[in-house]
Amino acid sequence: MYDNKFSEDVSSFFRSPVREIFKRVDLNSIYSFAGGYPSAETFPMEEIRRTMSEVIDKYAGKAFQYGATQGVPELREAVAARYGVPVERVQITSSSQQGIDVCTRILVNPGDVILTSNPSYLGALQSFCSYRADIRGISHDPDLETFKKAYETVLSQVEAEGKQVKFLYMIPDFQNPSGESLTLEERKMLVSLAQEHGFLIVEDSPYRELRYEGEHIPTMYSLAPDHVIHLRSFSKIFAPGFRLGWAIAHPDILDKIYVCKQSLDLCPPIFDQYVAAEFLTSGRLDENLARSIDLYKGKRDLLLSLLEKHMPEGVTWTHPEGGLFLFLTMPDGFDAVKFYDTALDAGVAYVAGEFFHPDRSGKNTMRLNFSFMSQERITEGIRLLADLLRHEIA
Amino acid sequence: MYDNKFSEDVSSFFRSPVREIFKRVDLNSIYSFAGGYPSAETFPMEEIRRTMSEVIDKYAGKAFQYGATQGVPELREAVAARYGVPVERVQITSSSQQGIDVCTRILVNPGDVILTSNPSYLGALQSFCSYRADIRGISHDPDLETFKKAYETVLSQVEAEGKQVKFLYMIPDFQNPSGESLTLEERKMLVSLAQEHGFLIVEDSPYRELRYEGEHIPTMYSLAPDHVIHLRSFSKIFAPGFRLGWAIAHPDILDKIYVCKQSLDLCPPIFDQYVAAEFLTSGRLDENLARSIDLYKGKRDLLLSLLEKHMPEGVTWTHPEGGLFLFLTMPDGFDAVKFYDTALDAGVAYVAGEFFHPDRSGKNTMRLNFSFMSQERITEGIRLLADLLRHEIA
Repeated sequence: MYDNKFSEDVSSFFRSPVREIFKRVDLNSIYSFAGGYPSAETFPMEEIRRTMSEVIDKYAGKAFQYGATQGVPELREAVAARYGVPVERVQITSSSQQGIDVCTRILVNPGDVILTSNPSYLGALQSFCSYRADIRGISHDPDLETFKKAYETVLSQVEAEGKQVKFLYMIPDFQNPSGESLTLEERKMLVSLAQEHGFLIVEDSPYRELRYEGEHIPTMYSLAPDHVIHLRSFSKIFAPGFRLGWAIAHPDILDKIYVCKQSLDLCPPIFDQYVAAEFLTSGRLDENLARSIDLYKGKRDLLLSLLEKHMPEGVTWTHPEGGLFLFLTMPDGFDAVKFYDTALDAGVAYVAGEFFHPDRSGKNTMRLNFSFMSQERITEGIRLLADLLRHEIA
Repeated sequence: MYDNKFSEDVSSFFRSPVREIFKRVDLNSIYSFAGGYPSAETFPMEEIRRTMSEVIDKYAGKAFQYGATQGVPELREAVAARYGVPVERVQITSSSQQGIDVCTRILVNPGDVILTSNPSYLGALQSFCSYRADIRGISHDPDLETFKKAYETVLSQVEAEGKQVKFLYMIPDFQNPSGESLTLEERKMLVSLAQEHGFLIVEDSPYRELRYEGEHIPTMYSLAPDHVIHLRSFSKIFAPGFRLGWAIAHPDILDKIYVCKQSLDLCPPIFDQYVAAEFLTSGRLDENLARSIDLYKGKRDLLLSLLEKHMPEGVTWTHPEGGLFLFLTMPDGFDAVKFYDTALDAGVAYVAGEFFHPDRSGKNTMRLNFSFMSQERITEGIRLLADLLRHEIA
């Protein structure tokens, strides 16, 4: 009686393995490189307490009433000012996950094509899948011409099939899961393709402000503001418990998001939005962000040096210039899903790379998070994982 | 380039008129019987401030981290205890609007039938519409047999068309927009039909605890716990700014909601959930609810007496035993949508009943909210509205 497209499509493909890990173990009792949690050390508890009290004084009942579907003006204006965009291009979302979901909902009909990188963010793939999108994952190639050709090939195929590409979903900064970024040339190439072929780009950038080395690269949005929906999150620069993010896009697109969001949840949480607005405008967000960057840079550097020291031959990894993740590649034939049992029994967790690949490749890869655990636990966890891998690969 | 089913279906039908009102006027500057806002007087500001501080002390970083998709255990347990249901049947939702949307998403394929009352809640109709559901509104009839026959007729029609009824959406307690409730016999009849014909019931009960007279009637969920998804909200018993609600249902259904909610927004706001849990278990919610009931009963009584005193002949209205709304019926030929201009120009707002009717009937009806404005403003507003109506109808 309860059967439906959603349950069929999603359960069979994505759900079980990932959920099962989190069901099987208490992530606090093991060395967890799984998940994408920021460190609780970065949450400025006393400043949040003070800000909350200030919000109650300043807004009284208004902070607990229904509010505008677009988000409270104070937060929209604070975001607009900080990122240099007009306020009419800012929509507050109840988490950046909602941003992804809403874009799919307003743009994608069953069978429509969504282009993604291969691998890409699992939560986005899950949302696309639930709308019965036809997901085409395209692997990165360091050669720009080859990379472009890969896209053009898929675009020709899609056209030949009489289908429509609705958007390209991309995380250009410190991608989840790979930790890698797109170069400026790659961004320009993709934006040109989008303009030429008439599809949108959904640019998901939750980690953008967590850069530990190198120079900021312009957003895809800045290259083509009318062709890109730019999604951001407060989860990684403030705290995920507020479930707040935002979308920056052409007002015509935001208008459709508005209608959609009304039937989703009417408006984002009001009190939380005022707290975020105060945090942003008071400068507390920037102070806190600087501390977070210091903390995470230390953890990333540690992880890189531990991998260098302990990993067996044949294992390679990415060098993320920011964000929360690093991607590990084991020799061909290694199966990271099968290896779960060994790893979890020994007390270490990761997410198998396969789940991030729309084409189900990447069986020999895994995603490691370095933001959540302390330096001590990262050290012990990598020693343990390296031992297990050495035994498995040998 | 941005065209899609969602925008087509929803904009054309529901969107413009309602949105336009709220765009045209500042609801604080006019007499607003539109909206469904609770009174800010009912928000216990100092108790919320104290509770927030306690939550920070008690949960520290955990209150600002990601949390379980089902909701934090403390809130699920508090809800389970208060309403006498097993905790595994409780899912916290990011607003009860999300509860409605999620049910539709997991159950309804395009063209599937949803039965509703006629009229019914606009936000639900909007969500159903966005999933391209085939909505069949069935008007209430005071005679139980006639009422049942109306349902049976629609069920036969749907069967003859080879379509499937996925669920019946019903607000049995102090319905939005009518303010009326279903009798126990009517609830039993509908539950029997659902069991017999194999469809679910989505029982939306945000106002249930706001009863001003009469006895509580058992929920439809209590009559058939495995056939009913029971939706509730903190918006009317605590504060809407937290955007929290909950669903009570069979674990198999919650399991599908779980998967869906992961791709919607991962989890409900964490800090807000802890605040709600503390509020509930400390007894503060009950104290506050008692004060809200007192306040709203006074406003309802006042509105009823004002209507009696001021409304011209030919205008009738419902007698809500609870909730936030009352429904006004003008003589045949009256057009509440056309009357907007007159009313808004004079400074009084309502929502035209037509928008709540899936069959677009009810042109001579309007919904009046009595929770939001003060008694003084309700008094002045009704005098004004009655004058305008007298002039229009005469």
